[in-house]
Amino acid sequence: MALIEQRLEQLGLSLPAQIQPPPGVHLPFAFVQQHGARVLISGHGPLNPDGTLAQPLGKVGRDLTVAQGYEAAQRTGLAILASLQRALGDLDRIKSWTRIFGMVNSAPGFHEHPAVINGFSQLILDLYGRDQGQHTRSAVGMAELPFNIPVEIEGEVLLYA
Amino acid sequence: MALIEQRLEQLGLSLPAQIQPPPGVHLPFAFVQQHGARVLISGHGPLNPDGTLAQPLGKVGRDLTVAQGYEAAQRTGLAILASLQRALGDLDRIKSWTRIFGMVNSAPGFHEHPAVINGFSQLILDLYGRDQGQHTRSAVGMAELPFNIPVEIEGEVLLYA
Amino acid sequence: MALIEQRLEQLGLSLPAQIQPPPGVHLPFAFVQQHGARVLISGHGPLNPDGTLAQPLGKVGRDLTVAQGYEAAQRTGLAILASLQRALGDLDRIKSWTRIFGMVNSAPGFHEHPAVINGFSQLILDLYGRDQGQHTRSAVGMAELPFNIPVEIEGEVLLYA
Repeated sequence: MALIEQRLEQLGLSLPAQIQPPPGVHLPFAFVQQHGARVLISGHGPLNPDGTLAQPLGKVGRDLTVAQGYEAAQRTGLAILASLQRALGDLDRIKSWTRIFGMVNSAPGFHEHPAVINGFSQLILDLYGRDQGQHTRSAVGMAELPFNIPVEIEGEVLLYA
Repeated sequence: MALIEQRLEQLGLSLPAQIQPPPGVHLPFAFVQQHGARVLISGHGPLNPDGTLAQPLGKVGRDLTVAQGYEAAQRTGLAILASLQRALGDLDRIKSWTRIFGMVNSAPGFHEHPAVINGFSQLILDLYGRDQGQHTRSAVGMAELPFNIPVEIEGEVLLYA
Repeated sequence: MALIEQRLEQLGLSLPAQIQPPPGVHLPFAFVQQHGARVLISGHGPLNPDGTLAQPLGKVGRDLTVAQGYEAAQRTGLAILASLQRALGDLDRIKSWTRIFGMVNSAPGFHEHPAVINGFSQLILDLYGRDQGQHTRSAVGMAELPFNIPVEIEGEVLLYA
């Protein structure tokens, strides 16, 4: 088993199935796409193990606490890792994490976006360590997100040549 | 005539003139910029054939229906293709579409961003086919967009070496 | 002294210290990160010379005028240049500016995002000139930003090989 997959198991974490969008929703794009050493990652949200949208939905600061938002960001990270694993074969092929754009469905007056997106960043640092897992990041407040998900994250990773 | 330009004509679509910003607006940046094989695309909105901002303006889910938002996203795609054509000479130079970031000016409680940005994605897939047109994407809800446009899209394409 | 640092001095501008986040805030990511010739830039906000968050905080169009937003975008540019200088040694290593994503903490109905983010673009054009300083850009309206900062900007630059 690849090293990152072993660490996930040691942390008691598992990767969800591919997203099952709500009925009638058409998503005509790739969840991840490789261009040479770059792998671009579409916006992902938090999923249940079977790929359905994880609850609770809604705005952080109103429908979700910061702790629930943190967990949603971690689940979003697992959904991204699952898409990367499906596209790449195993997660050890990732040489370094690069750009992460963390979007929080924000209640009016909610300003703790970094504390929410830390649920993603900490997961990646736990799995890849500081050298490979280190990334650049924005964590910002959106007016609305699709399906009313609380967190959406897109980004990029680099593969070993 | 280049192949993509032929397909546009077959689909009955034409590319708008360069944006004519509202009076007094200064836009001190490049609409597209080439760096080796990468071409970065600034945020574009929906335009009329003469480059003026297309109507209706406003928020999808309040001032525009989903169908009107879809059409605005398609028009935004045509504006992006027009900028790419001006910069590159012809649109056949594009080897693959990559990152697309689709922003929807969202009414409170509006969550159908994917259905809106599909107006862009479908245009690109119709023109470039599944292999070259396939892209990664986020489709998210903004609080406001410049000039109250309903849709803004930025992204990146790769050229043949 | 490097050329860009000289121009900053001639313009009467100086670079702030690294951000001092509010107490209890953990920011587990890199402010900038180099990958070959690409340097990715995390989301930055406007800072005082000592690295504390610059006042006024809040929404442009309600708590800040467009002129105050413009100044906040300029200060955000100085914070980005400071992070780049710390990572790269000197600012002359930058061959060209590329993608700039300008986020404005927007009051409802505020649509002058380009005029705000021009505070950043003009700074970069003044320092690097039109050839190197030219960039692609989006300037859009966010529902909320971390710590209630009025402007946040992320992006990318390319270094000389």
